[in-house]
Amino acid sequence: MSAPSLPPSYRPLDIEGLRAELAGVPALVQRLGGAPDNWSIREVSDGNLNTVWLVHGPTGSLCAKQSLPHVRVDPSWKMPLDRTAFEKAWLENVAPFVGDAIPALLHFNPTLYLLITHCLDGYETLGPALLKGHDPLPVAHRIGRFIAHTAFHTSPRGGPFEECARREQIFAGNTVLTRITVDLVLSDPYRVHPRNHHHPALTDLVKQLHTDAQIHHAVCRMQERFLTSRQALLHGDLHAGSIMVKGTDTAVIDGEFALVGPIGFDCGMFAASLLLAGFALPDTDARAHLATALPLFAENFESEYRHLCANGAPEADLAPAFLRHRRGVDEDELAVIRQDMAGFAAMEMIRRLTGYAQTAYFTMLPEPACGERQKKALTFAMQLLRDRAQAWSRLMAPHFS
Amino acid sequence: MSAPSLPPSYRPLDIEGLRAELAGVPALVQRLGGAPDNWSIREVSDGNLNTVWLVHGPTGSLCAKQSLPHVRVDPSWKMPLDRTAFEKAWLENVAPFVGDAIPALLHFNPTLYLLITHCLDGYETLGPALLKGHDPLPVAHRIGRFIAHTAFHTSPRGGPFEECARREQIFAGNTVLTRITVDLVLSDPYRVHPRNHHHPALTDLVKQLHTDAQIHHAVCRMQERFLTSRQALLHGDLHAGSIMVKGTDTAVIDGEFALVGPIGFDCGMFAASLLLAGFALPDTDARAHLATALPLFAENFESEYRHLCANGAPEADLAPAFLRHRRGVDEDELAVIRQDMAGFAAMEMIRRLTGYAQTAYFTMLPEPACGERQKKALTFAMQLLRDRAQAWSRLMAPHFS
Repeated sequence: MSAPSLPPSYRPLDIEGLRAELAGVPALVQRLGGAPDNWSIREVSDGNLNTVWLVHGPTGSLCAKQSLPHVRVDPSWKMPLDRTAFEKAWLENVAPFVGDAIPALLHFNPTLYLLITHCLDGYETLGPALLKGHDPLPVAHRIGRFIAHTAFHTSPRGGPFEECARREQIFAGNTVLTRITVDLVLSDPYRVHPRNHHHPALTDLVKQLHTDAQIHHAVCRMQERFLTSRQALLHGDLHAGSIMVKGTDTAVIDGEFALVGPIGFDCGMFAASLLLAGFALPDTDARAHLATALPLFAENFESEYRHLCANGAPEADLAPAFLRHRRGVDEDELAVIRQDMAGFAAMEMIRRLTGYAQTAYFTMLPEPACGERQKKALTFAMQLLRDRAQAWSRLMAPHFS
Repeated sequence: MSAPSLPPSYRPLDIEGLRAELAGVPALVQRLGGAPDNWSIREVSDGNLNTVWLVHGPTGSLCAKQSLPHVRVDPSWKMPLDRTAFEKAWLENVAPFVGDAIPALLHFNPTLYLLITHCLDGYETLGPALLKGHDPLPVAHRIGRFIAHTAFHTSPRGGPFEECARREQIFAGNTVLTRITVDLVLSDPYRVHPRNHHHPALTDLVKQLHTDAQIHHAVCRMQERFLTSRQALLHGDLHAGSIMVKGTDTAVIDGEFALVGPIGFDCGMFAASLLLAGFALPDTDARAHLATALPLFAENFESEYRHLCANGAPEADLAPAFLRHRRGVDEDELAVIRQDMAGFAAMEMIRRLTGYAQTAYFTMLPEPACGERQKKALTFAMQLLRDRAQAWSRLMAPHFS
């Protein structure tokens, strides 16, 4: 891949460069308080793509995120800088509908691709938290509501189609990160590819991924849904690494993969994170408790989405108020979202077990449990993908043992 | 509606203004030949929106089309000028795949919104031609192929999704004309609206359009398909007024409504034109012959589309070559296209009989035939929309008598 040309004024910041940049923005200086030299700046880069810092001053804090011209964990993988601009656009587009479920946008520097938001002090990433025994039920409840509100309000059920078209224009430009999803989630696990790897216990199952007729048929169907359905603005990467928790509070971060697509994709990404954690938990009581988070999530999403549809939006173009018999169409759409949720959950699980950017959930387990638990998880995911008729009931009552 | 502000250098052209404009473009001067004063310029505006001229010189001809800042047939209905720019973009995007089935683009003046293409000398509009006895079979055959090729090649089956995303970015901007479709085709006939009118013979049926549960359910479903499916680049207005014929030759014009949407929308628009002509033809033999054009169109579209899918495209992201079991997914998609074709055909017929911009097919009939034939057509369309299970068989064997 050839290196994209950088804007002339772009430079990757170090801690002192960031300090100088923040010191030049009066609103941020006021927020942090004190003198710039006294601000505590800590790099906390954790995702695969960007540099992230937390900044604390005497009176306030913030989070800074800068795009790099390459994948952070693989500098040979060159990448354009525009991903923080898409994250900013996502924050702006969903903020009106989700309250404090996302960090507030404070500042964006478009030449440095530097995004400044509220700092989520005291929060931790959902994935490790689940494995340490964090209660999954409040987050399942809140993410269900979160998807319902962002999806409804950014769809033609929630407003005139012209607003949807404006979002499609913006986010159809997010091809670099969408390409990652198309390749890593929707394609690579189903072929031999140098980015793939797997635990030796999975070898026989991985061979099936490359050849099984039912799986390939389902993969094509889910590719079609992802590539041609434009129901609503999605987060696009709503796994447990994009969710922060603090007690029963929940915040969604890292919207740089945002795109207009099928609502069940966000649902499926989140479901896959719960499922992978469920298969990785060593404690059977904890597993049984986590299993209840799946139906709780789905029920909260669906009841909230139904409620929003029933109330309607005065300017909506889809199922407008003058059509008296819209209810059935909302139920039809929820049935499609269920199918999409099951299919994308399966593909995300398969990817995290056999592709690139794998889940770390299983690495804490000793052998042979590490391999056995992954095998159980992959078997479950492959059944979920193969058997469409039973997918929903299987997803709502997963057997982790 | 407030008047959109015009670009300062825009002015609506008259014949002499057009002559001067053409005389300033060397390639057009060379094409037409002779001196500008000797060019024959004839206004032939026929559609609802724009001014159109045919220009002939000693050695060549061309067609000129200029956007007006209002609907041509209703100057009180203000409208931005960008529609010829979208028509130009549509011509550019489909030209590589359809040969001479569209007029070649010769020139575009972006400040005058003036589009210059080949002139279709000797062609006539399909609608009146059908009523005068033009054989519908060659055009049904060719339009089937035309939709198959434009749809396949502009979908993620025909190339990388990034090319589809680029087209989505362009055509999501075509909101002004898409708004016309959303309102006039997908909404207005199902409510009381001052733009609607109908023959007195249709009054009872029109009341059903405003209240019938099955029809409203189907309308919502089709609205959802139109507003959220992004299968391929569509013509967007493929009725008999956008198709020119000359013997067995066929050309598609007027792509200003182009948008990325469900493939069955283009299929349904064309089918509705055949169906309306079939109900309007006074001669029973001619009706029976026209009835055979529907299955011929569908068979040609489907066989060509299957052929393109089976051969595949090397860079395609949807159903890529390494997935061995893609065939079934193509058949699933064709089933969706059939449902969409039937639903949109029904809605287009209903709109042309009870909404704005009605078909002129029936006006030549004496009373009471004029009302009776429209009633037959509307009854057929409403059955088509209500009864999804029987829609395809009904569409493929319409009883015009």
